[in-house]
Amino acid sequence: MNRRAEAYPADRVSLREVGLRDGLQLVKTWPTTEEKRSWLEREHAAGVRHFEVGSFLPANRMPQFADLASTIAAVAALEGARSAALALNERGAGDAIGTDVDEIVCVISATEEHSQANTRRSRADAIDLVRTVARLRDEAGHKAMVNAGIAMAFGCSIAGRVDPDEVLLLAEACLAAGADVVGIADTVGFAGPRQVERLAKRMCGLVGDGGFIVHLHDTRGMGIANASAALDAGCRILDGSLGGLGGCPFAPGATGNVVFEDLVYLCETKGFATGIDLPALAAVRDIPEHAMPGEKFYGGIARAGPPAAFDWRV
Amino acid sequence: MNRRAEAYPADRVSLREVGLRDGLQLVKTWPTTEEKRSWLEREHAAGVRHFEVGSFLPANRMPQFADLASTIAAVAALEGARSAALALNERGAGDAIGTDVDEIVCVISATEEHSQANTRRSRADAIDLVRTVARLRDEAGHKAMVNAGIAMAFGCSIAGRVDPDEVLLLAEACLAAGADVVGIADTVGFAGPRQVERLAKRMCGLVGDGGFIVHLHDTRGMGIANASAALDAGCRILDGSLGGLGGCPFAPGATGNVVFEDLVYLCETKGFATGIDLPALAAVRDIPEHAMPGEKFYGGIARAGPPAAFDWRV
Repeated sequence: MNRRAEAYPADRVSLREVGLRDGLQLVKTWPTTEEKRSWLEREHAAGVRHFEVGSFLPANRMPQFADLASTIAAVAALEGARSAALALNERGAGDAIGTDVDEIVCVISATEEHSQANTRRSRADAIDLVRTVARLRDEAGHKAMVNAGIAMAFGCSIAGRVDPDEVLLLAEACLAAGADVVGIADTVGFAGPRQVERLAKRMCGLVGDGGFIVHLHDTRGMGIANASAALDAGCRILDGSLGGLGGCPFAPGATGNVVFEDLVYLCETKGFATGIDLPALAAVRDIPEHAMPGEKFYGGIARAGPPAAFDWRV
Repeated sequence: MNRRAEAYPADRVSLREVGLRDGLQLVKTWPTTEEKRSWLEREHAAGVRHFEVGSFLPANRMPQFADLASTIAAVAALEGARSAALALNERGAGDAIGTDVDEIVCVISATEEHSQANTRRSRADAIDLVRTVARLRDEAGHKAMVNAGIAMAFGCSIAGRVDPDEVLLLAEACLAAGADVVGIADTVGFAGPRQVERLAKRMCGLVGDGGFIVHLHDTRGMGIANASAALDAGCRILDGSLGGLGGCPFAPGATGNVVFEDLVYLCETKGFATGIDLPALAAVRDIPEHAMPGEKFYGGIARAGPPAAFDWRV
């Protein structure tokens, strides 16, 4: 069985909680290592299994991820839980391989303009990093899978419209370079559900069993509608963050990721069992709300709760 | 040509702004008559054409609608604009016919339990009111169309699950009683997109050309996803309110209607031209935000604006 099918079984929906990574990128304060551990443990107890928890970067660049190794160890202690973290260069990849991380995430910009502006390297170089990470992983005999995420896949804050053909070619190139799983990200929240459905259907054609990741931002209120469209198209791996935490440096005033709790509710109403206890999940919000008083937290389920009048579960 | 096809052409999407009715039902303060007029004028200038503006009720029960006749007159002064208002009993219907209103809205509960608890009358009595309103309208030779909205159509805060067969039968009964247009409302925000798509498809079977109304609340964050599903199913008339204003007495802590600005963006991304200028529309929020400082206003478009990097319009 390949790594991807093991981590993300094709016969169910997998939801990745990226709040501890994407949600902490732009904040001024963040949870302590102990609070992160509690966040992970309580979400795990509520049924969450996939956690993206940070970026392998020098602590002076991203002090919120200085405790990344401990956070990964905290995930490893939870039964059936899997950790993911970003490696943005070879040094990060080396650091990753020194930990127990289950998934090393590389990011490729959908457009050359954004790639150069954001990382001062070409898309080809970004794909080379995927190849390097896979090689380093194999040489070390490390368990981690390699995840290649294509940022700005639905529209670019610099180049504007993005050609879906190019996204498909990039995804193919990432797989050829050794990525175990690929993802498409609406980094600045430009997408609408029709666009998501079309690109996700083409990704299904490439990957086969819905085993690719759709990462959405709720910048313009389309997050859950786009997630619904991705599910309709056949995608079976979706990202979200608790309370919709997270922003984007390229989208001032933007809100963050799709609200994880609402994403769970969406899946359940569509007949996809998530195994997640919604009230228990929503209750975990007290940790980031306490640790990041300057942030806004979103979501309908946390406000209204699941329907009380009948059993809404699948 | 029948009244409905004239008001809601089948070849395009019609968006009804219900903020001045549904949005004002539970608030403690509300805009002055002059502010309401400005709200209407500025939305009309932005391209909005359908306005639901109040309920014909004694002023001591709903003082926010005491100026309803003036508000209806303000809509009548705007070219191509149409006003709608609720009539909850025969007296209200009589009052409506004394005004220039374009649409008289009757409400029928999907469940007998909710009908009795909310209005102390049966669903049969509610359908009789539709018949009475149509008769009074005809006797007076008044232009108004009769709109019958089925509340709790996707789940009831009292009875729980709602049988779609019953909703269809009620809709059919409303049309037989003389309603020119029928609507289905997710009054307490229980619905998910799959459920909306299924019921909307059946409504299309009943009505034919998508000429029925879907009225959604964003209580659990599913509002825009549900609107998207309704459009996919063929519905061509949708309600929303500026800033998502509005709550529901049966759903404590609930947010209001689907955010109108985000609904416009959704339609445009799906290829439905709305004729609405999004930044101009979002700017109108200053009126309710000023007049109702105690309320929360929602929405992604108002926060982030439409994408700047490319032309997102249809």
